[in-house]
Amino acid sequence: MAQLRIAMAQVNPTVGDLDGNSRTVVDCARRAHQAGAHLAVFPELMVTGYPVEDLALRNSFVSASVKAVAALAERLAEEGLGELPVGVGYLSRRAGVGERYGQPAGTPQNAFALLYRGRVEITSAKHHLPNYGVFDEFRHFVPGETLPVVRLHGVDVAFAVCEDLWQGGGPVAAARRARAGLLVTLNASPYEREKDDVRMELCQRRARETGAAVGYVNMSGGQDELIFDGDSLIVDAEGELIARAPKFEEDLFVTDLALPAAEDAGGHPPRSEEPEDAVDGVRVVRHLHSSAPIAPYAPEPAVLTPRADPSSDVGEVYRALVVGVRDYVRKNGFGSVALALSGGIDSALATTVAVDAVGGDRVHVLLLPSEHSSEHSVSDAEDLAARQGVAARTVAIAPIVEAFEQSMPLEGVAAENLQARVRGTLLMGLSNQEGHLVLATGNKSELATGYSTLYGDSVGGFAPIKDCWKSLVWQLARWRNAEAERTGAVPPIPENSISKPPSAELRPGQVDTDSLPEYDLLDGMLDTYIGTDKGMRELTLDGYDPELVHRVIRMVDKAEYKRRQYPPGPKISSRNFGRDRRLPITNRWTPRN
Amino acid sequence: MAQLRIAMAQVNPTVGDLDGNSRTVVDCARRAHQAGAHLAVFPELMVTGYPVEDLALRNSFVSASVKAVAALAERLAEEGLGELPVGVGYLSRRAGVGERYGQPAGTPQNAFALLYRGRVEITSAKHHLPNYGVFDEFRHFVPGETLPVVRLHGVDVAFAVCEDLWQGGGPVAAARRARAGLLVTLNASPYEREKDDVRMELCQRRARETGAAVGYVNMSGGQDELIFDGDSLIVDAEGELIARAPKFEEDLFVTDLALPAAEDAGGHPPRSEEPEDAVDGVRVVRHLHSSAPIAPYAPEPAVLTPRADPSSDVGEVYRALVVGVRDYVRKNGFGSVALALSGGIDSALATTVAVDAVGGDRVHVLLLPSEHSSEHSVSDAEDLAARQGVAARTVAIAPIVEAFEQSMPLEGVAAENLQARVRGTLLMGLSNQEGHLVLATGNKSELATGYSTLYGDSVGGFAPIKDCWKSLVWQLARWRNAEAERTGAVPPIPENSISKPPSAELRPGQVDTDSLPEYDLLDGMLDTYIGTDKGMRELTLDGYDPELVHRVIRMVDKAEYKRRQYPPGPKISSRNFGRDRRLPITNRWTPRN
Repeated sequence: MAQLRIAMAQVNPTVGDLDGNSRTVVDCARRAHQAGAHLAVFPELMVTGYPVEDLALRNSFVSASVKAVAALAERLAEEGLGELPVGVGYLSRRAGVGERYGQPAGTPQNAFALLYRGRVEITSAKHHLPNYGVFDEFRHFVPGETLPVVRLHGVDVAFAVCEDLWQGGGPVAAARRARAGLLVTLNASPYEREKDDVRMELCQRRARETGAAVGYVNMSGGQDELIFDGDSLIVDAEGELIARAPKFEEDLFVTDLALPAAEDAGGHPPRSEEPEDAVDGVRVVRHLHSSAPIAPYAPEPAVLTPRADPSSDVGEVYRALVVGVRDYVRKNGFGSVALALSGGIDSALATTVAVDAVGGDRVHVLLLPSEHSSEHSVSDAEDLAARQGVAARTVAIAPIVEAFEQSMPLEGVAAENLQARVRGTLLMGLSNQEGHLVLATGNKSELATGYSTLYGDSVGGFAPIKDCWKSLVWQLARWRNAEAERTGAVPPIPENSISKPPSAELRPGQVDTDSLPEYDLLDGMLDTYIGTDKGMRELTLDGYDPELVHRVIRMVDKAEYKRRQYPPGPKISSRNFGRDRRLPITNRWTPRN
Repeated sequence: MAQLRIAMAQVNPTVGDLDGNSRTVVDCARRAHQAGAHLAVFPELMVTGYPVEDLALRNSFVSASVKAVAALAERLAEEGLGELPVGVGYLSRRAGVGERYGQPAGTPQNAFALLYRGRVEITSAKHHLPNYGVFDEFRHFVPGETLPVVRLHGVDVAFAVCEDLWQGGGPVAAARRARAGLLVTLNASPYEREKDDVRMELCQRRARETGAAVGYVNMSGGQDELIFDGDSLIVDAEGELIARAPKFEEDLFVTDLALPAAEDAGGHPPRSEEPEDAVDGVRVVRHLHSSAPIAPYAPEPAVLTPRADPSSDVGEVYRALVVGVRDYVRKNGFGSVALALSGGIDSALATTVAVDAVGGDRVHVLLLPSEHSSEHSVSDAEDLAARQGVAARTVAIAPIVEAFEQSMPLEGVAAENLQARVRGTLLMGLSNQEGHLVLATGNKSELATGYSTLYGDSVGGFAPIKDCWKSLVWQLARWRNAEAERTGAVPPIPENSISKPPSAELRPGQVDTDSLPEYDLLDGMLDTYIGTDKGMRELTLDGYDPELVHRVIRMVDKAEYKRRQYPPGPKISSRNFGRDRRLPITNRWTPRN
């Protein structure tokens, strides 16, 4: 066996911030070097951030990324870190290949570079390109065709990118053929509820298949709607978990590995840069870096962050929302947020998430009672503002609503929507005047069914709980209060906001169940209809009332336009519309079976 | 030579309306039969409409399409049309192949079916899948691998779908190998300025390459943001244009063709259903339908709609906008539209387009003057409403704005935006009360630079001129007025709305050039920056002032969020953001060279 100390940097780059992301690499590489690491690795598309979307098709952006990675290699050497091999993801282009009809313009690639002694020593590119759900990588990248295998201190280390690990053929099979001792994958793998087990099990399976230890380094932090939850890990060749980073946090973790020495180490080194035959579209390209093993040393104990208790799923969702809000606010250059507090559970939870994300002093709330607002809606909102120490202002909307109705008398739903729009306009006025990012407080049940007002409660730049069913909203509120009690703090959310029946309070005595089924029932149907491929008949077979199923499905199918106009928000599930499922606006079809 | 009378149906299906689309096929097939046609062909995805987006991934939708096409075949036979071979596009799935990781769920295909004697006789699927700009077909479809060549009355007719014609290899090469006499392609090819020449030249080139006549049948009408402009055509094997349908209109046009008799016609018919070897991923599959040529008959003269005068580009854009509005309103089930009329050119043109699309009696305009509105803004708006006979109501917004400012004093941009949002709220109130679809009247120059108010002038369900630069808006207005004068009608747009300097009138004396460069200058820069891959340095080399270029580019890069929140609108160019270019919201990168 040969030893190797690997540093994995679970960091949080920003899309387009090539300078800032490069600085992060240098900082982490320095810490890795100080910790005595022999190799430092970073996430997929570290230099550009992920996802770059159609920026990948902009030639000047690809050039900027290629230049940035070359400059990064030089900078590392200048700072005395040139002897540490550093693996990073970046945006590159396929060399020596002209434009081909049907390929992304400029032949961009989701690339890997190993930086060493001031140079970009080795490059390769992601072979398997995901093209479903939130991913459109056939649109953005040309597949790579090589697996680099680097002889590093007598160990053969293979490098692959994200999806390459999820598929059996290609790079994984090539790593087995090459008899790599360690397979390192760079990832930008977004959070989904309960995904962490899937990732670990995948790494374990691939380790056993390839006979190599697997190192999995993932991004952390939020980028637009995606939240990268870290959870980087290392398993040995038998699939045993030996190191694991925390979730949602940035982390540089250093692990000592005992790996099989390459068979010919010290004897006949592999021919460098000499390609082998391609199998399944992937050629192994070997590089000789250093064939002599490290002199034996006493390994440090590995970091093995305890695995999340499966019952903490709700707590994990809460952390994801906080990370999503925190990074969206910061990465978009806002210093504060504003939102409307109704006394109901949605705005109460959204405010709590915002306070946990950016701090109570940077959260501004408006209380906007109308003539239909109950007394408790104001008192509950005031109670919450006081508990969390956020700046609250109250503006009664009745005089404004009246001014509108003097000019244009409105009835029914039109009059209800008017109130929501007056609130949205006040919120945007405050935002324009003082520079806060407005948070929309709608939940996923409302969004799915279209139970919201366009340009009213849909106003804002980010929507913290838009991917949470109403039933989950209650669970999250209860979890957050319990968490406060557990640590001896004041529960941030007034119990009354959690326990009272939900109401939009847009007409006298209105409650949500006037328009919608009970949320427990509704959310079950919605999650099935939106999250799976089941239609009317299957839902009925599941035991739901056929008439209700039909009504709910119609609501969902008709709400596509409203969903499109809603602000983005942190994604916690792939059971979604939007980036996950893109439907036509005009659509006459609703499943009947 | 053998004769064949082909009917091409340039029709306008609606996405998801399987019943309605099938009825259209039956109606056209009946007319084709009455006209003595030997073959009738319809556009790509005729049965489902195009684009279906992620509906392609819904198993029940694919099943519904497959069932609909079988039912359509039966229905044609029941109506006495079973002897007429009918070629349609529909959504199918790849038979006999299980799910494969990395493939669209359910293996959907963009398929072709030939219906005959009550059965789906022959099927195949689109081989080349476009995956750029507005197309994401790798996400939605599995490529087809066969080219059906049908011996029909002694002529070998090959059938391919849209993109298959644009690429040299695959189906086009297979048609040549198969020595087809006629290559028919089914298309859903969206309008773009000046695209018609490209299509005709493509057909001519492919005809000469394959040695076959080429029949090109395209969809017409609007679907969400896309506008299909028809322009179906037939060229002979030498590439000579012999028939051409009008643009933007539905049309069934019948053409008599003299085609080479298949070599072995009458002698040794090809083995039916017996595949040949695949070349370039495409196998020729031959089908024997009828080997005896039609008895000679006197051909009817072909329809050859005169080619558009190249100088009529602006008129063509205008027609595209009208079609886009008309079909969006109709297909989404609205009976009328509402919009705010400011007296300026944008709302004047949008109203005129709307009146031409749905009729003046179904257009409702609101005049919403503020304290900053000039006298001419009201009089010009009233003049326009009178010229076009649309119902106009006036609501002064000052009392409402005052009510807001009593509750929350606002200054500067916040106060300007407030006025726009009050207007948006009034417009939506009218829409909710009376059921009109609200049209947003912003132009592309505003959208590109973010010179608009979120939830103010961006309010609405459809935006007729969102893809028109401001300079084009003036051209369109002048063109429309000239067109009226040409036909002796009253010019619909008051000259003053065209000639006065543009202003948002949100503060005293405001004009657009306070915030933006002159539009001629701005639009040139924007079209280059958005439409090509040029950045800062190249624009400067083009002669633009570097400081101005930097300022404009920054505005454009920062406006992505506003662009996303804007309503959809008819697409007339691929020099776009949105579906054509999808950028991250958070993006720290702006090209510096």
